[in-house]
Amino acid sequence: MLSDKVIERLSLYHCILQDCLNAGEEFISSAQIALLLKVDDSQVRKDIALCAVQGRAKIGYNALDLKLAIEHLLGFKNNKRIFIVGAGNLGFALSKYDDFKDYGLDVVALFDNDPLKFGMKVNNKEVYDIQKLPKLSEQMGVETVILTVPRSKAQEVTDFLVKSNIHYIWNFTQSVLKVPPNVSVHYENLISHFLLLKN
Amino acid sequence: MLSDKVIERLSLYHCILQDCLNAGEEFISSAQIALLLKVDDSQVRKDIALCAVQGRAKIGYNALDLKLAIEHLLGFKNNKRIFIVGAGNLGFALSKYDDFKDYGLDVVALFDNDPLKFGMKVNNKEVYDIQKLPKLSEQMGVETVILTVPRSKAQEVTDFLVKSNIHYIWNFTQSVLKVPPNVSVHYENLISHFLLLKN
Repeated sequence: MLSDKVIERLSLYHCILQDCLNAGEEFISSAQIALLLKVDDSQVRKDIALCAVQGRAKIGYNALDLKLAIEHLLGFKNNKRIFIVGAGNLGFALSKYDDFKDYGLDVVALFDNDPLKFGMKVNNKEVYDIQKLPKLSEQMGVETVILTVPRSKAQEVTDFLVKSNIHYIWNFTQSVLKVPPNVSVHYENLISHFLLLKN
Repeated sequence: MLSDKVIERLSLYHCILQDCLNAGEEFISSAQIALLLKVDDSQVRKDIALCAVQGRAKIGYNALDLKLAIEHLLGFKNNKRIFIVGAGNLGFALSKYDDFKDYGLDVVALFDNDPLKFGMKVNNKEVYDIQKLPKLSEQMGVETVILTVPRSKAQEVTDFLVKSNIHYIWNFTQSVLKVPPNVSVHYENLISHFLLLKN
């Protein structure tokens, strides 16, 4: 099991490798990566060792090999189907965020409780009545949601999702959710991330 | 200086305290907080000790006192003016994200290079020609931006921001940015956060 920090760093190395390949560069050194991220070179080498890719002295790592190894280690190529619950501004923006697709993350539908939104299409994804979620979740084999409802509705909607066999909630609301032990929540607490910027 | 993890946890305690106060509850124990976040009770007590708020045996902490202490420690009440660079879907969504205001985070303007967007207003914030950013940054004393431009433009725009005396970049693009030592970047790498959900 990889630590949170290792996953975050490997994801950033992956971005660097993609930029490197886009620029037509075949090799990259740990020192170059370390410099870009302002982290320690030895840390970068330690992380890369997890990918079982060998570097060559004075040349560095083959960027494509390392990129593929990170994708394998982090499971980028595993298809991950996901629902967005809450078809507001943020829900719409995330459904249009095409970068997700490069990582196997596939938003297949949106849900809301506002009848005016039912049937709307955003980026080829349809907005459904949230009452249809349990059935569609079963049919499509989706057990992961992005939660972007208003804070005041977050727990009520979560209770409904738990009953509907959703097991993973990526929570973009500012509410801390009560869930049973078999449900995981990841808090996308944007405010705390902003604070990290100035820390 | 607080560690990243402490800042993230304190921000989540703050959310819990707000929910608690909204529900009319005056006191909360570290065990209740620990249970909600599925972390260790001793960890919660250690974090709260940083806020210099005393709990009472069998009653817990006064929720309002603790909430105010966290706000003070994390600087929530300091007004933080910020620009959004890139008036696309995500830029618009973040400019409409009113939760930011509760934490002193004030989006004052958006910038883009598309003339069709100049003068548009989103949530009472105007979209300006990015060429006007250096002057407005100086006039308004803003040195922090949310970067939501396309990945392929991220470095070029960053170079321009650095020349325009921007010192903090909250980077929502999937690009790793080259910046001089006096500029900080926080990577909002949504993909790695998604991976944490299933880890």
